[in-house]
Amino acid sequence: MTRPPDTTDQIAKRRGLYWPSFEIYGGLSGFYTYGDPGTKLKRNIEKTWRDYFVRRQGFLEIEDPIINPEKVFRASGHLDHFKEHSTECTRCGRTYRADHLIEEKTGLENVEAMGPEAIRTLLRQHDVRCPHCGGPLNDPVLILTMFKTEIGATGGETGYARPEAAQGMFTNFRRAYLHAREKLPFAIAQTGKVLRNEISPRRGMTRVREYTIMELELFFDPQNPTCPWLHDVADEPIKLLTEDMETRGEKTPLETTISEALRNGQILTEWQAYFMGVSKRFVTHLGVPPDRQRFRAHLPAERSHYSAQTHDHEVHLENYGWLEVAGHAYRTDYDLRAHQQGSGEDMTALREDGTRFIPHVVEPSFGLDRLFIAALETSYTVRDKRNVLSLPRDLAPYQVSVLPLVTKDGLPEKAREVHEALLDAGIIAAYDESGSIGRRYARSDEIGTPIAVTVDYDTLKEDTVTLRDRDSWEQVRLPIKELACRLRAYFDYKLDFLGLGEKI
Amino acid sequence: MTRPPDTTDQIAKRRGLYWPSFEIYGGLSGFYTYGDPGTKLKRNIEKTWRDYFVRRQGFLEIEDPIINPEKVFRASGHLDHFKEHSTECTRCGRTYRADHLIEEKTGLENVEAMGPEAIRTLLRQHDVRCPHCGGPLNDPVLILTMFKTEIGATGGETGYARPEAAQGMFTNFRRAYLHAREKLPFAIAQTGKVLRNEISPRRGMTRVREYTIMELELFFDPQNPTCPWLHDVADEPIKLLTEDMETRGEKTPLETTISEALRNGQILTEWQAYFMGVSKRFVTHLGVPPDRQRFRAHLPAERSHYSAQTHDHEVHLENYGWLEVAGHAYRTDYDLRAHQQGSGEDMTALREDGTRFIPHVVEPSFGLDRLFIAALETSYTVRDKRNVLSLPRDLAPYQVSVLPLVTKDGLPEKAREVHEALLDAGIIAAYDESGSIGRRYARSDEIGTPIAVTVDYDTLKEDTVTLRDRDSWEQVRLPIKELACRLRAYFDYKLDFLGLGEKI
Repeated sequence: MTRPPDTTDQIAKRRGLYWPSFEIYGGLSGFYTYGDPGTKLKRNIEKTWRDYFVRRQGFLEIEDPIINPEKVFRASGHLDHFKEHSTECTRCGRTYRADHLIEEKTGLENVEAMGPEAIRTLLRQHDVRCPHCGGPLNDPVLILTMFKTEIGATGGETGYARPEAAQGMFTNFRRAYLHAREKLPFAIAQTGKVLRNEISPRRGMTRVREYTIMELELFFDPQNPTCPWLHDVADEPIKLLTEDMETRGEKTPLETTISEALRNGQILTEWQAYFMGVSKRFVTHLGVPPDRQRFRAHLPAERSHYSAQTHDHEVHLENYGWLEVAGHAYRTDYDLRAHQQGSGEDMTALREDGTRFIPHVVEPSFGLDRLFIAALETSYTVRDKRNVLSLPRDLAPYQVSVLPLVTKDGLPEKAREVHEALLDAGIIAAYDESGSIGRRYARSDEIGTPIAVTVDYDTLKEDTVTLRDRDSWEQVRLPIKELACRLRAYFDYKLDFLGLGEKI
Repeated sequence: MTRPPDTTDQIAKRRGLYWPSFEIYGGLSGFYTYGDPGTKLKRNIEKTWRDYFVRRQGFLEIEDPIINPEKVFRASGHLDHFKEHSTECTRCGRTYRADHLIEEKTGLENVEAMGPEAIRTLLRQHDVRCPHCGGPLNDPVLILTMFKTEIGATGGETGYARPEAAQGMFTNFRRAYLHAREKLPFAIAQTGKVLRNEISPRRGMTRVREYTIMELELFFDPQNPTCPWLHDVADEPIKLLTEDMETRGEKTPLETTISEALRNGQILTEWQAYFMGVSKRFVTHLGVPPDRQRFRAHLPAERSHYSAQTHDHEVHLENYGWLEVAGHAYRTDYDLRAHQQGSGEDMTALREDGTRFIPHVVEPSFGLDRLFIAALETSYTVRDKRNVLSLPRDLAPYQVSVLPLVTKDGLPEKAREVHEALLDAGIIAAYDESGSIGRRYARSDEIGTPIAVTVDYDTLKEDTVTLRDRDSWEQVRLPIKELACRLRAYFDYKLDFLGLGEKI
């Protein structure tokens, strides 16, 4: 298997997975639209995340507004810290992220973490210029990158679109604490849109201004930091770039396990270790091979203002290099303390001995759109010069495609009957009668549909259909009356393809 | 059954369904937060909508950004028309919707539809004053009620948060048309957040600034307006207030059927009629009795700028009166034509005879948060002075609650085992050991959990548990090893409660 000749961007556009938004108005950088299969794949990834991180543990979920009043972000520190290094071309007036321009010119990594002084110096040292017109650039300044608005049509209160979902879990901590019957540990999860008003997003789907986050805040007592499920993932192997290794400039990650990294103090808390283990398994479930995954510790200057330790979960993609798909942050009591101070409301929890304390927080935070790209990129393969999207069967946008062999002699009518019956039975089925059968198989494979159901002349005689496997191209034959039931067993992973019917 | 002594708002807050957002910062009108059971109920309603309107028909879904550049809303007409009548108190400076103040003072309905002149006159005639300080009010002015922002951290392009999802379906029409192999009719659906910068929202959860919309645009050829599924809902009885009836001031709706209303020209197109029939069934599925539902035609002055006919689907709630939960609009070719003009891009479809035309559009648009309130309000009942939320079993936030009879003698440990096994089996199970068993039953009923599973002393001896029905309070006993499997059958509506085990 080699890489496909088309980029995933091209295939995504052709097959309707995603494309740049507002195309008819010339586009707008940093915004993407998901088409029908994209919407379905995205929803399947979200469902899988919920299975791994929320449902099984019985954690809580909330939904908090996207627009928040300014005081929330003043208290949280975002008004002071949620900024990027902006530089303006003195000739054409375009603005850019100074650190990204330096990275592109020098090959340096994580320039942002070096701080404003170093960035100004590097910009001058390497004579970085406007990528558009070649003009000289102004000294970088820090610019707030939240979307700002006025709440109330006649104005009155300044608001911002949230750049993370987490503040909703902190500002609503007390309600969730009551719901959890005032017992720690518990977690609040939230999925939803977040917006970051990037200065000049230029890296396709991996750096967008509006995206979906899947975030979880685990609240625990620092005097009782035990995670009861740690043993579930204790032996999970991980590749880890520690803070020390990064300081020394080492590039080859340590091969260790969750429990070992915890024992050696490379991961600070049991809860972080647990979620990193679950994270590894979740991303593997999405089809990303373990050898393309690593955890990378943030250097102190790189960490967000709230974090005592952060590990990025990164995946290696041919088109994007190492890409962060999740951040595992130890936020300590920073946020609850900040909101206690900002609001004057009590944010403490009660120990059995009667003492009060502000809970500590561990946060696994996933970028859903980046997981989407990771799942796409790692599942695209080429077979006989055709693109095949070998997604795990429970992620595939469509479960089956129904295809009449030809569009005459009553075959389309019969195929539509089969299609409707599958829809009725709850199977996600596509129907396609346009073009040759070979072309339709190719289309079905390219969008990752695990099984193609073909209605042919024998169908009219025997009421049987042919099923074709996306990956092996093997075929089996089975009676229509068993189709829905068998397909359900297949998609519950209770059957292999050849168990579906009689091999032909 | 009578109404509960508590309002749904009170129960919702106590049980964590929803509450006003940003409480610790004094709140912000028009924003609500969903807690854990609320998030789950909301997701179940969305899933049911998808079953009724998208999945079964094989329609397309997309996900388009919330933030749109100004040119989208200039072309769509929103910049000119998406406005409300604002009036300001000359004494305290507070702003209000003039038409709402008039409605509150006079009992008149739909004052907005009367137009700016009439509103100014009514305000003076009835001497409407500031509800806060009693001060005199300025003449109303029309104010744009979209949230405005700058795209790009250093500014540059004005953007707005979308007030409806529909524009995404229009601006992406061509991609979906290609995906549908250039054949009409087809539909594009979208769920997601929309924002309306209401001047002064003062009607709780029914008038909010940020909410979730479930919208669908059906594109068809006006020369071939047939809906192939019309017969599915042709006989569905509906109550209808027609334009004529409203003009005459009649209050008692016509009792008719979908096909009759279509035949009599009261509904203009087959597709509208079809979706109105599906709408009736969907809202009934959510637990709203047919006699609390009606369709009300908009008068011409009330209709949105894009609509040739609109029927609101309204439900009657004790606390809110008649509440719009959906709008069924015949948008004609207004939007596609507007974007063709605004963008210069071709928005036509091709007939088999080679002629080109701009497709017409029918739109059913649901407010998810209002359906949520409707489902809550109509399912709350009182039994023995306790609140019981008699939600349809497939909507309930939690499927079962697991309760140890007492918190000693190993019962909590056994109950936690049962709880974990149910979670493993994919059942949405809550666990509760706090307070007396009677109190926990009450809590379980109040949040609408269909079945309570009690672990008692016999459980330790016989490995059986007691199941208690939320609505009848009947109890059955069954072996733990059959529990998950039987519960699954129950939640698939394949079993009645008494079919779950042996009655006790």
